[in-house]
Amino acid sequence: MAQLSDRMRALVQPHLAQIEPYDPAFSQTRINLSANENTYPPPPAVRAAVDDALAATPLNRYPDPMSNRLRDLIAARGGHSRRQICVGNGGDELLFNFIMAFGGQGRTLLNCPPAFSEYEFFASVNQTQVKRVWRDPETFELDMPRTLEAASRSDMVILTSPNNPTGNLVGAHEVEQVCEACPGMVMVDEAYIEFADPGSSVECLLPSHPNLVVLHTLSKAFGEAGVRCGYVVAAPDVIDVFAAVRQIYSVNVLTQAAAEAALRMEVMFDPVVRQIRAERERVVAALRALLADVDAPSGDPAPAVWPSQGNFVLARVPDAARVRERLRDEHSILVRDFSSAPGLAGCLRITVGTPEENDEVLRALSQLIKEDRS
Amino acid sequence: MAQLSDRMRALVQPHLAQIEPYDPAFSQTRINLSANENTYPPPPAVRAAVDDALAATPLNRYPDPMSNRLRDLIAARGGHSRRQICVGNGGDELLFNFIMAFGGQGRTLLNCPPAFSEYEFFASVNQTQVKRVWRDPETFELDMPRTLEAASRSDMVILTSPNNPTGNLVGAHEVEQVCEACPGMVMVDEAYIEFADPGSSVECLLPSHPNLVVLHTLSKAFGEAGVRCGYVVAAPDVIDVFAAVRQIYSVNVLTQAAAEAALRMEVMFDPVVRQIRAERERVVAALRALLADVDAPSGDPAPAVWPSQGNFVLARVPDAARVRERLRDEHSILVRDFSSAPGLAGCLRITVGTPEENDEVLRALSQLIKEDRS
Repeated sequence: MAQLSDRMRALVQPHLAQIEPYDPAFSQTRINLSANENTYPPPPAVRAAVDDALAATPLNRYPDPMSNRLRDLIAARGGHSRRQICVGNGGDELLFNFIMAFGGQGRTLLNCPPAFSEYEFFASVNQTQVKRVWRDPETFELDMPRTLEAASRSDMVILTSPNNPTGNLVGAHEVEQVCEACPGMVMVDEAYIEFADPGSSVECLLPSHPNLVVLHTLSKAFGEAGVRCGYVVAAPDVIDVFAAVRQIYSVNVLTQAAAEAALRMEVMFDPVVRQIRAERERVVAALRALLADVDAPSGDPAPAVWPSQGNFVLARVPDAARVRERLRDEHSILVRDFSSAPGLAGCLRITVGTPEENDEVLRALSQLIKEDRS
Repeated sequence: MAQLSDRMRALVQPHLAQIEPYDPAFSQTRINLSANENTYPPPPAVRAAVDDALAATPLNRYPDPMSNRLRDLIAARGGHSRRQICVGNGGDELLFNFIMAFGGQGRTLLNCPPAFSEYEFFASVNQTQVKRVWRDPETFELDMPRTLEAASRSDMVILTSPNNPTGNLVGAHEVEQVCEACPGMVMVDEAYIEFADPGSSVECLLPSHPNLVVLHTLSKAFGEAGVRCGYVVAAPDVIDVFAAVRQIYSVNVLTQAAAEAALRMEVMFDPVVRQIRAERERVVAALRALLADVDAPSGDPAPAVWPSQGNFVLARVPDAARVRERLRDEHSILVRDFSSAPGLAGCLRITVGTPEENDEVLRALSQLIKEDRS
């Protein structure tokens, strides 16, 4: 879809006439390391429990609107109460509803890019102005003085920790400062938090910061990207807002059943998460070794590999767009090309997969980059 | 949830401060005839196919954003092309996105109540003004002259056929006139169309009326209310609008798999639909007999039972709210009380269930109404 027809551009709300929907840039390939999915299927015991739960779920009745069994499970894990949890149709629904509820015309969302592009897409759909404070161009750390200054004049802030696609954590102290500076709501998107060092979540700030919302998803560590289940943790009156604006049956019975089964067996995911963390360090080291004596074309920034707390690695390589294309076309490996995204010149984001998948992408990259230099 | 906290009312968009979310008025009962679900579980062969499909579906990968396999199935059934179909997370998502795309501030939605209350809820969330042309208070037929006049000054019209909760069809000729009168978009919500007389769908008008959108769901005849799958059929450039504004992963892999399995075995639902239609006529006749010599309390409108083309029957009974309460509390049967909804004084809506469920509700109603008169 290039653009809407003339007739549709005249009929849709004016701010939607030039809409450009989020593009997952998906192609069918042998190895897909482009979407930060957990490339491990769920552990067999979890999958069996999910299948049993699905088969036992009546299909013909509307879902429990608030997914209360799932809320209770989530609440118990985190030491929260049910009233602090709202479940959504993936993190997307909750992000959209957050911006719809607290944003809108005349409101401002503070974004700290490079970050997940859907924040700004949802802001534009909701006619919400976006204020940007760019992360440090070398380290991708938050620019705290400017972030705090902008937060003090924003209705909403979204911080991502670990940040997609750069891998940085945001510290609890920084989040605390942003919550105190911002007169409105602060969301910390912790989609990738399970891959970070233990103790990195900012949920501990919830009791003292009632304008904080922490977003989670089962799409990453829990290997259920296809199931679409996310949730927010926040003060009960914030949860009431999420509950009020949502489509009441947005989380279907199958999603509720599959999410419950996975959360009940959470401990089974520990070895997978540990392995992904270990593989991430291996991939970072291997990419650094690979790029150590590679020069950038003159005028381009030097090759680099950033440390990551997520299940992905950001790397700047010479001729990134072409490398991504050749990985796809010659090796049937898909990675994400951010080289034309602002602030990410030359960057590819590579999801950390299984050891075999990581070996393959490292081997292919090594070949492409060496070939290029010969 | 009574109302938002003071602090939240100050932080949400002003038009959301007094939001009252859709209330399904659900209580756990033995027999639930309140939500127009198909009270038959899917036929065993369908359920087996669904379970097999679910078990074969990888969970860890994001869904196909556009549900293309499902689109192809739907397109083939209706003689449409894939480009004329958009699948949604239940009809709700498509309704919401329709109003979000074509409504908004300064835009007007024409509604013909009594109708499904979510239309106006979604309009209010999207700051869309609602113009109402009430149906005939006795027959609930559309008031065509006033509807056409209002349509000519509206950006959007939603017509429901069969209408929920009154059971009326809207004829193709009426829809045609509305499409011609309205300068914007016309949606016909055909959630219940499978229960109507054959040939009642207005999809046949699509080629000649490019501002028409027909909404369908698998929640009713296909017995998958829990699965959340709806779709719209419209001109390709209208579908592009739905595709552009949606959350790209709103339809999860399990929903796609379950919907495909049900649609592939569509023919298995025919006996169920036939039985519900036959039972509907039996329930209407029995209720009429039951109410034939019942007088309304003085000043109240006379008892009545309306003909229906849906899987539900609307009946006006004396002391409806109390009858509904006693059905729930003394018989553990849940029906929907519309007696305090505008235009529906004294009305209950009773979903047509299995023969046994219908026997039970008729027996209980008979007892309550006779007792009342003794």
